[in-house]
Amino acid sequence: MKKFRDLPTPCLILDLDRFEGNLDRMSRFVTERAVALRPHSKTHKCPQIAQRQIARGAIGICVATIAEAEVMVRSGIQGLLITAELVGQPKLSRFVELLKRAPNTMLVVDNIEGVSELQTVVQRAGLQSGVLIDLDIGQNRTGIKPGEPARELADTIARSPNLRLKGLCAYAGHVAHASGFETRLQKSRDAISLALETRDRLRQAGHDLPILSVGSTGTYNIDSDIAGVTEIQAGSYVFMDVEYRQIGSASDNVYTDFSPALTVLATVIHRSQGKAIVDAGLKAFATDRPFGPELLDVTGVKYEFAGDEHGRLVLENPSRPINIGDTLRFMLPHCDPNVNLYDRIHCIQGDDVVDVWSIMDRSGGYF
Amino acid sequence: MKKFRDLPTPCLILDLDRFEGNLDRMSRFVTERAVALRPHSKTHKCPQIAQRQIARGAIGICVATIAEAEVMVRSGIQGLLITAELVGQPKLSRFVELLKRAPNTMLVVDNIEGVSELQTVVQRAGLQSGVLIDLDIGQNRTGIKPGEPARELADTIARSPNLRLKGLCAYAGHVAHASGFETRLQKSRDAISLALETRDRLRQAGHDLPILSVGSTGTYNIDSDIAGVTEIQAGSYVFMDVEYRQIGSASDNVYTDFSPALTVLATVIHRSQGKAIVDAGLKAFATDRPFGPELLDVTGVKYEFAGDEHGRLVLENPSRPINIGDTLRFMLPHCDPNVNLYDRIHCIQGDDVVDVWSIMDRSGGYF
Repeated sequence: MKKFRDLPTPCLILDLDRFEGNLDRMSRFVTERAVALRPHSKTHKCPQIAQRQIARGAIGICVATIAEAEVMVRSGIQGLLITAELVGQPKLSRFVELLKRAPNTMLVVDNIEGVSELQTVVQRAGLQSGVLIDLDIGQNRTGIKPGEPARELADTIARSPNLRLKGLCAYAGHVAHASGFETRLQKSRDAISLALETRDRLRQAGHDLPILSVGSTGTYNIDSDIAGVTEIQAGSYVFMDVEYRQIGSASDNVYTDFSPALTVLATVIHRSQGKAIVDAGLKAFATDRPFGPELLDVTGVKYEFAGDEHGRLVLENPSRPINIGDTLRFMLPHCDPNVNLYDRIHCIQGDDVVDVWSIMDRSGGYF
Repeated sequence: MKKFRDLPTPCLILDLDRFEGNLDRMSRFVTERAVALRPHSKTHKCPQIAQRQIARGAIGICVATIAEAEVMVRSGIQGLLITAELVGQPKLSRFVELLKRAPNTMLVVDNIEGVSELQTVVQRAGLQSGVLIDLDIGQNRTGIKPGEPARELADTIARSPNLRLKGLCAYAGHVAHASGFETRLQKSRDAISLALETRDRLRQAGHDLPILSVGSTGTYNIDSDIAGVTEIQAGSYVFMDVEYRQIGSASDNVYTDFSPALTVLATVIHRSQGKAIVDAGLKAFATDRPFGPELLDVTGVKYEFAGDEHGRLVLENPSRPINIGDTLRFMLPHCDPNVNLYDRIHCIQGDDVVDVWSIMDRSGGYF
């Protein structure tokens, strides 16, 4: 059997035992809290992982793009929630095609013109579509403002014969990585209280809102305790990353609810005084955070980006010798954009490569 | 004919007139200076572009990885220089296979053990390989130190019956983006003087060194005036990006020697007080620089990253109205890692999509 240390580097390595442990832990947690899990698949963009999430009880998956939705439906996944607005005919045409194959797909909307455009294309195809109102509870990104603007939008949806209002999508992206559990708890409760007030107002106006979709890997165990939350859309828990580890958990300075399961394997290609160079740089790691990757099993070494294909290891006080030809595993700085840099995930058990899964196309993904 | 504004966004748009203008300008320049061009293809990872560079007189191309080399050779490109050390059997085995199809491929080496390992695998295959010594002229990345260490390495190569020492590769990555032409000129001359001194020392020791490969888009018109430089490995000039535009040219605060030919097309999916949201975020743009993308034809708007699939346009003083559904073109922050985020390049003339080129796999690229 192929050993993972013989793979050409850089490459993605998924420790299956840790990965399945993460899936099991989240599955048990949401089952105990009687909240549903519709995990976000923009983290992995990998049908095999979505299938394993569904097999462990997830009610469907979230996707961020029409291309992700297409790939998942083609792989037999149902119960999709598209968490970003689809604007313009190229995407709306594809959405209608998708609805034919996956009629229970839901799409977020955040403005009256968008609802009108969606109603037109769905009606023309003789279909029905479920929609969630995308609510801005503090992220300052997409989403309609809570309260009266959301009620007007709900009324518009209710008057649209081919759309069915299923609830609210209230993602607090500004809270997901807030550092310190108590801080995160307060911020998330504050944000979600805006969604609950809006839900109440819309119900008083006669709207049925069975779904309130919220949350992230940072707040899964906060939001699931809030009465009224019906489902959690956490994604990163399957892999984990440096960023989530830094935010701390309810009991620890390091967030260890889930294990770092996904790493980048790199090779030391140069060694000189006080430094080593690995073959993994800007094209191997996510660069959107102010910190880089961290070695999985070695301390006293700091990674610095050093070009497209190069990373510099500053050997401050390495806990083991670092030699040319060594293969090293790095935790990802930020898992979602990091996974997006690869075509494949190499699944390992111990030293053996036991499976290879495909990550969907970077751009496109038509069927 | 398909109009580019009807493409699903985000996507890469290459303005062919500007692109070919960039190719022509560089081609004319190196011809006049009687220096050779072996452009770096890690910028584009696209055989169609490499073929166009060769057709305009490039003597070959540089590549950064064995996978890039494989894709280029499979597309009929010859004259490859692999600019990063290949360490470990998985890559060296592939290098030997590549040599069979492209015997004039050259590989950089920077240490005696690496030369020994390379000699062994090349000899075992009954082949010959050209090598360049990778010289560290200040970047503090890979490369052997100039002077005596380089001479020892040259002697080792000379004693390796299946390797032929062809010269020096002296990439001054720390100079490429130095701001201000005069500063860049001085820094590049200083760096390359280290390479020239080493070349002289190695010649005195009896080594023939026909090649001195240096340079970048930032220094192409500096390095080509330095006696002894034989070839330039600039890459970004084909596309251009925000970073290169900021460094200034010999005559202007903005570097305009080459035109911004490649852009990301994005759609406005949300519009509210003072801001617009586009469907292009961390997975659509390179994030390794402290600045984001810039709008191609609109001023008074600042782009902020707002998640994997979202960018926030802060509408400070927009030179035109920004409305939901608008498609906007953005200059790339840093072209090499930005191109790496896409599978395809859509080539346009005016509003028409006239061709679609493939960007090679993110990871792998076997043949």
